[in-house]
Amino acid sequence: TPPVAARPRQMVVVKAAEAINPDIRKTEEKVVDAVVVTELAKPLTAYCRCWRSGTFPLCDGSHVKHNKATGDNVGPLLLKKQ
Amino acid sequence: TPPVAARPRQMVVVKAAEAINPDIRKTEEKVVDAVVVTELAKPLTAYCRCWRSGTFPLCDGSHVKHNKATGDNVGPLLLKKQ
Ligand code: FES
Ligand code: FES
Repeated sequence: TPPVAARPRQMVVVKAAEAINPDIRKTEEKVVDAVVVTELAKPLTAYCRCWRSGTFPLCDGSHVKHNKATGDNVGPLLLKKQ
Repeated sequence: TPPVAARPRQMVVVKAAEAINPDIRKTEEKVVDAVVVTELAKPLTAYCRCWRSGTFPLCDGSHVKHNKATGDNVGPLLLKKQ
């Protein structure tokens, strides 16, 4: 008869891919925003790419907290008028 | 003497906040891109906000696969010349 298998000492943890947007406009199938660049009011406008901004689609600086909490390195897209 | 505690049947799993950028320019402390909007070549240009594009900071459609795999709803920022 075969020997009794030892209890494995290690476990392989398979991590599911995760959503990156926890909260923003979750009723929309896909959150797409359009900017007509000729209508930009200021010389420089920052748009959020971290999905944590309270003023999404604009950046409100929340990427700083996200990066600190997770070790991430994300930041905004800057639109410059020239 | 106090009764022996029963082994708990449930475990509270505290999930750590996660990075949203797995791979892009990880040597940079913060990935910020600037677009001079007067230099946009095409009437419509899509910029990535899912951190999965092979042509980052541009969108290459990879958000579709990410959304399907995770149940997420992220999409690009569209820059329109008018
Ligand atoms: S708040 Fe999201 S990139 Fe700044
Ligand atoms: S590939 Fe990232 S938003 Fe489209």
